[in-house]
Amino acid sequence: MKLQHLIDFNDITTDEYDELCRLASDIINAPHRYSAACSGRVMATLFYEPSTRTQLSFQTAMLRLGGTVIGFADPNSSSVAKGESLRDTVKIISGYADIGVIRNPMEGAAFAASLYSGIPFINAGDGRHLHPTQTMTDMFTIKREKGRYEGLNIGLCGDLKNGRTVHSLLRAFTRYNGNRFFLISTKELRVPDYILNEFSGSDNEIIMTDNMEEVIDGLDILYMTRIQRERFGSEADYRRQSGIYVLTPDKLKSAKPDLTIMHPLPKVDEIAYEVDDDPRSRYFEQAENGMYIRMALILSLIEGNPQRRSSRRAYPLPTRRFCSNPICVSNHEHYLPEMTKTVGGELVCAYCDYKII
Amino acid sequence: MKLQHLIDFNDITTDEYDELCRLASDIINAPHRYSAACSGRVMATLFYEPSTRTQLSFQTAMLRLGGTVIGFADPNSSSVAKGESLRDTVKIISGYADIGVIRNPMEGAAFAASLYSGIPFINAGDGRHLHPTQTMTDMFTIKREKGRYEGLNIGLCGDLKNGRTVHSLLRAFTRYNGNRFFLISTKELRVPDYILNEFSGSDNEIIMTDNMEEVIDGLDILYMTRIQRERFGSEADYRRQSGIYVLTPDKLKSAKPDLTIMHPLPKVDEIAYEVDDDPRSRYFEQAENGMYIRMALILSLIEGNPQRRSSRRAYPLPTRRFCSNPICVSNHEHYLPEMTKTVGGELVCAYCDYKII
Amino acid sequence: MKLQHLIDFNDITTDEYDELCRLASDIINAPHRYSAACSGRVMATLFYEPSTRTQLSFQTAMLRLGGTVIGFADPNSSSVAKGESLRDTVKIISGYADIGVIRNPMEGAAFAASLYSGIPFINAGDGRHLHPTQTMTDMFTIKREKGRYEGLNIGLCGDLKNGRTVHSLLRAFTRYNGNRFFLISTKELRVPDYILNEFSGSDNEIIMTDNMEEVIDGLDILYMTRIQRERFGSEADYRRQSGIYVLTPDKLKSAKPDLTIMHPLPKVDEIAYEVDDDPRSRYFEQAENGMYIRMALILSLIEGNPQRRSSRRAYPLPTRRFCSNPICVSNHEHYLPEMTKTVGGELVCAYCDYKII
Repeated sequence: MKLQHLIDFNDITTDEYDELCRLASDIINAPHRYSAACSGRVMATLFYEPSTRTQLSFQTAMLRLGGTVIGFADPNSSSVAKGESLRDTVKIISGYADIGVIRNPMEGAAFAASLYSGIPFINAGDGRHLHPTQTMTDMFTIKREKGRYEGLNIGLCGDLKNGRTVHSLLRAFTRYNGNRFFLISTKELRVPDYILNEFSGSDNEIIMTDNMEEVIDGLDILYMTRIQRERFGSEADYRRQSGIYVLTPDKLKSAKPDLTIMHPLPKVDEIAYEVDDDPRSRYFEQAENGMYIRMALILSLIEGNPQRRSSRRAYPLPTRRFCSNPICVSNHEHYLPEMTKTVGGELVCAYCDYKII
Repeated sequence: MKLQHLIDFNDITTDEYDELCRLASDIINAPHRYSAACSGRVMATLFYEPSTRTQLSFQTAMLRLGGTVIGFADPNSSSVAKGESLRDTVKIISGYADIGVIRNPMEGAAFAASLYSGIPFINAGDGRHLHPTQTMTDMFTIKREKGRYEGLNIGLCGDLKNGRTVHSLLRAFTRYNGNRFFLISTKELRVPDYILNEFSGSDNEIIMTDNMEEVIDGLDILYMTRIQRERFGSEADYRRQSGIYVLTPDKLKSAKPDLTIMHPLPKVDEIAYEVDDDPRSRYFEQAENGMYIRMALILSLIEGNPQRRSSRRAYPLPTRRFCSNPICVSNHEHYLPEMTKTVGGELVCAYCDYKII
Repeated sequence: MKLQHLIDFNDITTDEYDELCRLASDIINAPHRYSAACSGRVMATLFYEPSTRTQLSFQTAMLRLGGTVIGFADPNSSSVAKGESLRDTVKIISGYADIGVIRNPMEGAAFAASLYSGIPFINAGDGRHLHPTQTMTDMFTIKREKGRYEGLNIGLCGDLKNGRTVHSLLRAFTRYNGNRFFLISTKELRVPDYILNEFSGSDNEIIMTDNMEEVIDGLDILYMTRIQRERFGSEADYRRQSGIYVLTPDKLKSAKPDLTIMHPLPKVDEIAYEVDDDPRSRYFEQAENGMYIRMALILSLIEGNPQRRSSRRAYPLPTRRFCSNPICVSNHEHYLPEMTKTVGGELVCAYCDYKII
């Protein structure tokens, strides 16, 4: 695999992605063949905000490849608290570790890290921007459950407006055709237009509804997400509507016997406890799949980048603030070079994908 | 060993316990034979409250078996902070790790975890309820020091009312006979009756006293514990009495040359510093023994449970709050099935052993 | 190597230090020969204050030797919070681990730890007192960059009054001759006299200046340090002077092509970002060298101390507070024996090197 870093799911071609899935399946089938594959290699997990599940998944993935892990989980106990730039931290870590994993609340932070890194970096979430290994986990689970990415009836339910995982999953499906997406949400929490627009070039159908029960019987996949109470217009709205989006055994009665129920986890109230014991619920398997696809990714990046590169890169300093997104990393790490790209005819910030205005 | 989980010291039969002690001794004598015994295996330490010593002991145990460790030490940096249920956390961890260790301030939390786990779980302390690996550590130390569990004069000193380790140690001795227990404490801090009642079926003698110096010369073992200042009735009581329960070189003058002084650690003021250098003090060896008996336990659980079980278990939801203990896990994790058991003719909560009223 | 612990850089003879450097270079050249050198060994990192960079460097060093790591990074989550003495913690850790690394804000804490330890201990910083592995890192970097410790023109710039790393580096150079030191700082932030006095016995030249630009063209090495804003006499002083001590591409124009720019890191504003990309800047390589010299140190201490020693040491309790340094460890851990030594004809505290008055 030619990949140097994994910052965005779109960094991977369909062929590369299929290769990763094959590798992950092979690891599941014969874990012992990989238990020393990264022996002697060190992974650094730079978590600038806590995310126990993601960090544990990455750590376990590296340990099960025979590698070791260093890192931090709390910005207050790191040198960041002393005012060190992201660039310096990345350059130092490049001297210690063989691969890096970064999670950071600033949008574009993982891309910024990759600019200065001498080792492969993986984006484990940069604010609400991207979380590509979650998308890989979701897609890999669909592959394992259904064996295909076409001809599927896929329901997505919950907060479709703010849910990063839902947007990424939809984007990933623009590579494929022949699916029907049932977007189940309140009017206020619908998928934004700019996401829907990306589907225009592909042959998939989009159906919007606010009623799960009307569509559940036709679904092959039901991807549930959490609706935060504060997303409802008012407390009255919350009381009236929230129950509609809770998955219960009752609602599942009309569903197909081979429905696959997914959830990015953690979940709170949106799935009734009894559903966990229904064989159609696959979210815990989904979490486990996430470990295996991360093993495949780590292994591929390490094998594909045997030589540490120089972390000395002469980028020009920016002459102005070029991005209007206040939580874009470029507005916090002021040395970052001005970088833009054109997406769908529009000029966007190369760090956070915000439109340049 | 048939054991699936270690939640309560009573889960282990005497034969199983003897087997664990033999294994621990063998590890002490020939550590290199075990240094790869858990190679490729991952232990998860779920510490919902900090307990550095216990966590380090478990971690070192697994590392010295050639395994690796993931986990968290701080509930605020875990998904718990996002409202995830214990059940969900356990199910996800079952997909990552091969064995789990849980510490949780809620009583019965380890038992609750075991209900949903696909991997063996060890209780590393559930509130003031149980801490079975501490009891194993204490009993293993007595075995190594004295070679037997019968015919011993055992002093227990300090806060005998609230000390979980003392209660567990006494309970463990109800399996054996021919010992004399000297319970040394103030009147206010005596061992509760329900613990003493458990001795009625065994042939051991109980002597209560508030004076360490009167009994120290006959002791084979002196198990010291900490008295917290706030346990005394008044500040005047504290000043008058606290010194009586501090072990000093002076008090040790009349003790046997082969006395074994124990303490679960950490200690603060209850043992004078000079006693540490007395060869009869064995509490640091006791802590080290704890690492070895934990190695034996981890290894036995992993070898005895080669297959991950399904974590899909269809328990009925409870129809009411059945336990009156406010810190029972069943009153915090509301999906937990109603489970009770009969102990000594009384109906108790299966999670926290509280009497059902 | 005969070394039992590394508390002070002066604990190592010149020969031992040269041996460590040779070993570190050998590790750099053939890392695979050392990747299992500490297999089965456990390192404990006791960090009583956070220092992510130092802890990551030590952890990576041990992992790259095939060993494993336990420890804590936060005193609040450790038994220290329960009032446990340093001595008890060290004795317990001696039963778990094969080598210890301690960082503690109290001066003399690492020396105190070594008094009770059954395993080798490394000082990873005790307040503003000592940080010997930083000094080893700096000296090793000079060796790799220049191949010698004599005949060098060495500039030291920044806060030379309070900078622990600068003082230690100067002290290390009193072993060698024929160098010229350019001490570049404001009048208020000059190197203290007691450090300069240590040079009287060696054949090195000291030149003080407040002007970097006047001396930069002759330098072989420029060691930059951070000046904290609060170190300036007034806000006006800060504005007037701070820029003088910032290293910029402009100031570097007159510097030698083989100048080596060093910095202990983390840095904030004292080096312009563009300088990072100048091939003469070597501070990231310096950080990486720190990992290798720590590997050499850990390996040498473990190989040189194959047997765990007893941690039972009968020191007499002190009869009075003997050190007037309020942050000396002896004033916080009250059991520590009274220990003094004579340095340059003066009686000093053996823990913190404060003059006894």
